[in-house]
Amino acid sequence: MNPATRGFDPAEFKDRVRRAQAMMQDAGLNALLMTTEPEVRYYTGFLTRFWESPTRPWFVVVPASGDPIAVIPSIGAYLMGQTWITDIRTWQAPDYDDDGIGLLARTLADVAPGNGRIGVADQMESHLRMPLSDLKRLESLLPQGQLCSDAQITRRLRLVKSEAEIAKIRMATAIADRAFDRVHEIASTGTALSAVFRDFQRLCLEEGADWVPYLAGGAGTGGYGDVISPASDAPLCRGDVLMLDTGLVWDGYFCDFDRNYSIGPPSPQVAAAHARLIEATQSAFDLARPGALIRDLFHAMNDIANPGQTGSDAGRLGHGLGMQLTEWPSIIPQDDTVLEPGMVLTLEPGVALPDGKIMVHEEDILITETGAEYLSSAQSKEIRTL
Amino acid sequence: MNPATRGFDPAEFKDRVRRAQAMMQDAGLNALLMTTEPEVRYYTGFLTRFWESPTRPWFVVVPASGDPIAVIPSIGAYLMGQTWITDIRTWQAPDYDDDGIGLLARTLADVAPGNGRIGVADQMESHLRMPLSDLKRLESLLPQGQLCSDAQITRRLRLVKSEAEIAKIRMATAIADRAFDRVHEIASTGTALSAVFRDFQRLCLEEGADWVPYLAGGAGTGGYGDVISPASDAPLCRGDVLMLDTGLVWDGYFCDFDRNYSIGPPSPQVAAAHARLIEATQSAFDLARPGALIRDLFHAMNDIANPGQTGSDAGRLGHGLGMQLTEWPSIIPQDDTVLEPGMVLTLEPGVALPDGKIMVHEEDILITETGAEYLSSAQSKEIRTL
Repeated sequence: MNPATRGFDPAEFKDRVRRAQAMMQDAGLNALLMTTEPEVRYYTGFLTRFWESPTRPWFVVVPASGDPIAVIPSIGAYLMGQTWITDIRTWQAPDYDDDGIGLLARTLADVAPGNGRIGVADQMESHLRMPLSDLKRLESLLPQGQLCSDAQITRRLRLVKSEAEIAKIRMATAIADRAFDRVHEIASTGTALSAVFRDFQRLCLEEGADWVPYLAGGAGTGGYGDVISPASDAPLCRGDVLMLDTGLVWDGYFCDFDRNYSIGPPSPQVAAAHARLIEATQSAFDLARPGALIRDLFHAMNDIANPGQTGSDAGRLGHGLGMQLTEWPSIIPQDDTVLEPGMVLTLEPGVALPDGKIMVHEEDILITETGAEYLSSAQSKEIRTL
Repeated sequence: MNPATRGFDPAEFKDRVRRAQAMMQDAGLNALLMTTEPEVRYYTGFLTRFWESPTRPWFVVVPASGDPIAVIPSIGAYLMGQTWITDIRTWQAPDYDDDGIGLLARTLADVAPGNGRIGVADQMESHLRMPLSDLKRLESLLPQGQLCSDAQITRRLRLVKSEAEIAKIRMATAIADRAFDRVHEIASTGTALSAVFRDFQRLCLEEGADWVPYLAGGAGTGGYGDVISPASDAPLCRGDVLMLDTGLVWDGYFCDFDRNYSIGPPSPQVAAAHARLIEATQSAFDLARPGALIRDLFHAMNDIANPGQTGSDAGRLGHGLGMQLTEWPSIIPQDDTVLEPGMVLTLEPGVALPDGKIMVHEEDILITETGAEYLSSAQSKEIRTL
């Protein structure tokens, strides 16, 4: 395992663009238009937390040949200039009269003259990050029908991670693993769940996270109510199950996994539920290899975690992982994506318990040439005890 | 100053809905459709970090009369059930055949039958958080032209904060103020900027932040290159200016301000630049009162920070603040928003320095009945020294 280094070699971006351009040719597309953070970063390396501000739109255009063109607010020119991108066209945003749409339309006319087709992401898990009125204005400036589906090109490319990307995800999972090993320092009977959340984020930073975009969890006797609620100030009680689920970031790449802890010795039901979750996870892991289907992983987990039942409120039993906390595909019975080396997935079974309680478990895995590898540390059937 | 409490009284949400409905009547709208985190939260109180996952769409419909209706993935039913919302319609997402669009269309038909007009946010700083293909599908299921602009209703409402909202922003600014006062613990000659970033987030958590969605900054001799770059591993050097700009969150509300520090005694140029930034900020603060215009604040700052020049790469000299790191309006010469009590703004002048360097300063202010109040601690002209 090589230690990860920050950033990417420019060759990596050039390779991404070259492969996108080959797919564009197959799909009859003259350009791709990117509007969201991961899309822009995937082709350029533009990494900033400034996307937290919704004010300004950002655009990157991948032409049929040649390098990407950034069409961005001037506040980003310095940072974009540090990437491998050289054609950087800026306007002073926010501009109440024309917030970059005229400049974008002229750029698109350069790369896709006439009726050249311009692909934008339109599938599940995507959105167009620009005001609806600006989309209409852009459409009015372009030949009718010029904007069309991107044939999922960027999504398909991002599905398989490079060695350099995997190294960054490894860093993130290792950091979270170390933080999870220190939860005994911050949580015990009487600790408010909100304090546990706050201190766990601190542990993630101490162990090397750049930042902690995601933390969820829950605590309760014999399980928790859901997995997306913010922390309450209620204190942990003996007999509670505490679950923490983090998506921390290292150099722009996420981990996403959870750990369960019993406050004091677990009840037989909780102990059995945890063992079942680990068994379900391992069962999917054992199947995971090139050529297997995503839906196979679903059934392997579901048959153990929820025998005789399909579907739960969570809606899926895991998903892709990388530049975003969750990525395509979803581990559901309807997904027939064929596994390939370089895919990174989470396995995330859940079990229903009495009184509407649930327990969930999650690990991160890499599909290798011959099978799969745990990126997070595979857990034993015995629940951790605090 | 009352200490803030978590959550809101249901009366606050009912008041927001009642005021939205009055504005909908004026605008001839039969419903509003919300798709983004702040819009959904504004009317429901639905607070979760789960929005970090791009997978699932979330919808809330505000009808012309009566309470909002949540149309959401089943994974969110439990948490939405903890809010004041009672009409919660769910589907098991992700659903590759119909990810909530059929359910949403039926809901919209219930509340806006016939050709009733349904408003969606379409202005600057907004986007529609749903796949483009789903938007087209929704439009095909609704009478033509039924989806239209929301007349900026939610944006106009959010511009003026309630007492309870202001109390939460006060909490966030106070937490950041305490963290900024502790920077001497984590930064000195030789400290890598990346370590400063990591440790500053830890300080924010220790001082009470729920989480730290935003941290930016820079360091360099005589100023920094920009204000949106991630931290490098380069060590701080004597004579550097270090700037940290944080947007931390308490109970869903942000602060957003920065502090500059000189590593060792400042150069005369840096000392003068900092004094000028404080003077510019104070000049806008002195003008800020009900009836003044946003553009007045721009000119007050710009005349001192960048005399004889309009505009810079940053594009604006401050903005609104609240449920998001940055909100409408933008402090630019074109903005004629009239200040009202309850608006919360950042004042953020910048100065250009030799060799392409810049320095920026930022404070958070509240417009009161008679003037303005600093929410962050107004800084003295002397730059802090580490």
